[in-house]
Amino acid sequence: MSYPIEKTIHQHIPLSLAMDFHIEKLSRQEILVTAPMQANTNIHGTGFAGSIYALGVLSAWGLIKYCQDEAGLDAELVIAKANIQYKKPIVDEIVCACQLSQNNEQLYLEQLKKHHKAKIILNVSCGKNSEARLEAHMYARL
Amino acid sequence: MSYPIEKTIHQHIPLSLAMDFHIEKLSRQEILVTAPMQANTNIHGTGFAGSIYALGVLSAWGLIKYCQDEAGLDAELVIAKANIQYKKPIVDEIVCACQLSQNNEQLYLEQLKKHHKAKIILNVSCGKNSEARLEAHMYARL
Repeated sequence: MSYPIEKTIHQHIPLSLAMDFHIEKLSRQEILVTAPMQANTNIHGTGFAGSIYALGVLSAWGLIKYCQDEAGLDAELVIAKANIQYKKPIVDEIVCACQLSQNNEQLYLEQLKKHHKAKIILNVSCGKNSEARLEAHMYARL
Repeated sequence: MSYPIEKTIHQHIPLSLAMDFHIEKLSRQEILVTAPMQANTNIHGTGFAGSIYALGVLSAWGLIKYCQDEAGLDAELVIAKANIQYKKPIVDEIVCACQLSQNNEQLYLEQLKKHHKAKIILNVSCGKNSEARLEAHMYARL
């Protein structure tokens, strides 16, 4: 199954195609993204730090964008700042997972409806064993 | 002019080719990197956050790797953690610039020679008007 938001990302962000980015699972509470090592390798034959980060931000962005779309809110969503820690090299397929509680989703969407802008921080686990962790600060404007 | 380290990066990091990453200037005190908007655009038609970050880490990594090579030190160099702030969208060619003082270069190389490992933090300015700023924490082991 291919999610419409994956097609939108592939159409507008050429790097997502170069990384062979795919959404495996998507609901308003969770996103699971994968990309093969071959397209995302570094000089050591492990996951390239830039790819891991880019896949992580696409995960966070994709999840919140999906929530906005489901709520019928066509808000512009951007990454304002982020930090990432690489604890171990990723040696296999790059998997990114990000969750959002129903409560935080509701708070975010209410903030966006009420003030026509909203902020949210999401944590993304990168690698099958959370080899890297990304914290993405996002900002939306209706 | 094409720098040998650019060829090495292109050969081993497929994403660097996809981003059309090029080193415009390189010395032990400075690196200047460029990539065209077309390959690195996002859904808003401005610089993709993931590309900006990846170009920034390649700048920091490339500068320190070059210093190590010039000093004859074949140390493995990795990004341990990083943070990035996006202040404004990048609307033009993505330019990343990073400097290293001669003093900090010497301290780093001495640390690496003496302890067979070393840490260094570099700041990278991304965009012609520093639209984003990356702080990269790197770690090397001989």
